[in-house]
Amino acid sequence: TLRAEMDELYPADISGILYELETESARYLLSLLDRGVGAEILANLDESDRSKFIASFTSADLAPFVDRMDSDDAVDLLNEQSVQVREEVIGLLEDREQARFIIDLLHYDEDVAGGLMQKELVKINVNTNVNQCIEEIRQQAENVEKVYAVYVVDDAGKLLGFVSLKKIVLARKYAKIADIYEADVVSVETYRPVEEVAEIMQKYDLDAIPVVNVQGRLLGRITIDDVVDVITEQAEDDLQAISGLSGEVEEDDSIWLRAKAQLPWLVAGAAGSLMAATVINGFQSELGKVAALAAFIPIIGSTGGNVGIQTASLIVQSLSDTSGLTATLGQRLLRTLLLALLNGAVVGLMAGCYTLLIGEPRLFPVVGLSLLAVVMLASFMGTITPLLLDRIGINPAVASGPFITTANDLIGIGVYFLIADFLLAEL
Amino acid sequence: TLRAEMDELYPADISGILYELETESARYLLSLLDRGVGAEILANLDESDRSKFIASFTSADLAPFVDRMDSDDAVDLLNEQSVQVREEVIGLLEDREQARFIIDLLHYDEDVAGGLMQKELVKINVNTNVNQCIEEIRQQAENVEKVYAVYVVDDAGKLLGFVSLKKIVLARKYAKIADIYEADVVSVETYRPVEEVAEIMQKYDLDAIPVVNVQGRLLGRITIDDVVDVITEQAEDDLQAISGLSGEVEEDDSIWLRAKAQLPWLVAGAAGSLMAATVINGFQSELGKVAALAAFIPIIGSTGGNVGIQTASLIVQSLSDTSGLTATLGQRLLRTLLLALLNGAVVGLMAGCYTLLIGEPRLFPVVGLSLLAVVMLASFMGTITPLLLDRIGINPAVASGPFITTANDLIGIGVYFLIADFLLAEL
Ligand SMILES: [Mg+2]
Ligand SMILES: [Mg+2]
Ligand SMILES: [Mg+2]
Ligand SMILES: [Mg+2]
Ligand SMILES: [Mg+2]
Ligand SMILES: [Mg+2]
Ligand SMILES: [Mg+2]
Ligand SMILES: [Mg+2]
Ligand SMILES: [Mg+2]
Ligand SMILES: [Mg+2]
Ligand SMILES: [Mg+2]
Ligand SMILES: [Mg+2]
Ligand SMILES: [Mg+2]
Repeated sequence: TLRAEMDELYPADISGILYELETESARYLLSLLDRGVGAEILANLDESDRSKFIASFTSADLAPFVDRMDSDDAVDLLNEQSVQVREEVIGLLEDREQARFIIDLLHYDEDVAGGLMQKELVKINVNTNVNQCIEEIRQQAENVEKVYAVYVVDDAGKLLGFVSLKKIVLARKYAKIADIYEADVVSVETYRPVEEVAEIMQKYDLDAIPVVNVQGRLLGRITIDDVVDVITEQAEDDLQAISGLSGEVEEDDSIWLRAKAQLPWLVAGAAGSLMAATVINGFQSELGKVAALAAFIPIIGSTGGNVGIQTASLIVQSLSDTSGLTATLGQRLLRTLLLALLNGAVVGLMAGCYTLLIGEPRLFPVVGLSLLAVVMLASFMGTITPLLLDRIGINPAVASGPFITTANDLIGIGVYFLIADFLLAEL
Repeated sequence: TLRAEMDELYPADISGILYELETESARYLLSLLDRGVGAEILANLDESDRSKFIASFTSADLAPFVDRMDSDDAVDLLNEQSVQVREEVIGLLEDREQARFIIDLLHYDEDVAGGLMQKELVKINVNTNVNQCIEEIRQQAENVEKVYAVYVVDDAGKLLGFVSLKKIVLARKYAKIADIYEADVVSVETYRPVEEVAEIMQKYDLDAIPVVNVQGRLLGRITIDDVVDVITEQAEDDLQAISGLSGEVEEDDSIWLRAKAQLPWLVAGAAGSLMAATVINGFQSELGKVAALAAFIPIIGSTGGNVGIQTASLIVQSLSDTSGLTATLGQRLLRTLLLALLNGAVVGLMAGCYTLLIGEPRLFPVVGLSLLAVVMLASFMGTITPLLLDRIGINPAVASGPFITTANDLIGIGVYFLIADFLLAEL
């Protein structure tokens, strides 16, 4: 039967199958399955697919699944619903502990540790022993899917440390928790940004991290699988920002959604290029006298863009890598400008040789110096812009996209014609 | 004392401190510490920092640390050394099991599951009971830092399933492993690419995955912390490829290294732009008659580049996301071209209006149609190039970088002047 076939599959695989079904058939499939499995499948769906899929669900349809989800996933799902549906579903939950968990978690923004944590964890008072600890695990077993460690708290609920499951397996039954727990525990406060949580878990190779409030009380934990999803999503966001796509868009989205993601930067880029057109038009008489000047417009524009993106991308990368030493702005600029001299000289000489090749030696100094200047300016812009954006709280990857290309295109053209005007006697 | 202060820190923090010290002081610091902690610190260092640091180590200096590392980290370190050092160190290892582990692991490429796995794991014969299993964990305890589950094998060493540590804690002492183990186990073969391992672990939310040979024999395991590092590194590589940087380079690398990473694509881009220059020079007489034609060179070039990068980036993203349905090439191209018509019309009209503004209405059809054509060509190129690169085994993100920009710049200029030639009576 279908049910039996589904039992052979992991929930994550069934989620994959749901994507390919019509909503009707998907709902039928879900109704055949165990509610717990169904809950996991719903938790696994992409936000956009999920909202399409559960659009036809009433609050009463949703509640049994929300009842059986991990509290972090339940909150994610409820945050996608209207306030009314959210309240209704919470009111309909059979598991009142789950309801309390959810109400707790709804307070946190999704981009801080609190928004990523789940309430499901095993904790034990420091004044107990291993036997009592095992009993606690037994009672929580159904509710806490993955137990990596048991967190140790004092009477006030303050986090003191942890005991790994391995240690519990190997300990004597009546060993005191106080004697065996590990007090060196890495934790995060609820308000820490998720990027920071990801960095910490990656640095210390953690599989789960306890979340505490400012007083150090244990409130929840974040498991590595959810942090892996955060890391992947951030990488996608950066790639999109750098490619000049606004919003989260995917190749299989509707043409309308894709246009909405592409057009803002295309239009902004076009506007920048039309400003460049105005500059070029202002030099029409010069172009009339030295027609070959027009030939170097592309190299001026594209070199500035390429250098700008390369430089900005390195800065973005160093901003997200907090492990090494951070250079001061002055050091950064000095190194950047030295490097720009080298890069600019290479590209400038290359274009200079080309002027000889086409029999326009008088353009050698114009094109060569312009490229040197453009590479230096682009390197400067590529360094400054992401640092500035980062300072004012905007994703610095945006700077490495079409913004930098367009800005450098415009500046480059201006510099080029000014240098031409200055160096060419006939203009 | 310094030693006492260091004992307060995690190895990952001490690695961070080493970065900031001179080699001499770093070595002194390392010599103060417990060898096991030292091993973890060395394992944590970046490849480039590590090779600088251990350049002064003899094989005899290295061996005690390699002895105490996880086998996966030991192999990574040895793979960075010369064959001679590698063999010497292996010969000097006191732990002969570790030597065997390392010799085993040295066979695998670093980009497949075998190159990521460690030999440290707890496995148990299916014909044992929980008590024997706990004894096995006790014996392995020192060697296997993180035990997530005990793997269950048959007499031939074939992987049958696993028992989670939680289950072992809760099981009766004399329960048979055969009765309690979970046979639904996700494993990977040694030859699977690391990207695939990362996808699988992310999909099923695994903390560790067993690695088997083609016969299904259990050879090792991969833990999630190492996969997180792979994911992060890949994201960095993609960002670099798309930004036109070759090789792995960081902002704080030497100017020489940075120039080596920037110049290949800068020079390639410049070469493309000089080809565009040749095209423009070929149309000198046309430019002489309609000087305003030069003004639109930037918008033609940058729009093609921007559209190409946007499109390619979406394709790259969909290539790495295997969860959804995959469209056929025909469907992709059709959707892409419809979208291009829309985007091209918007940008084309925008530039068309600008021609009116500067009093050159005869350029309206030339510029408008050229932009429409350029957007369509760039969308086509942006779709085809990453698919093609992916097919022949090159990182498709390379396509979304300066390659696409330069190619589209060149094609765009050609199309523009051909259309101008065709539509303008005066040329
Ligand atoms: Mg959440
Ligand atoms: Mg629950
Ligand atoms: Mg790590
Ligand atoms: Mg979770
Ligand atoms: Mg999850
Ligand atoms: Mg997404
Ligand atoms: Mg470094
Ligand atoms: Mg390795
Ligand atoms: Mg060992
Ligand atoms: Mg996952
Ligand atoms: Mg490892
Ligand atoms: Mg590691
Ligand atoms: Mg790297």
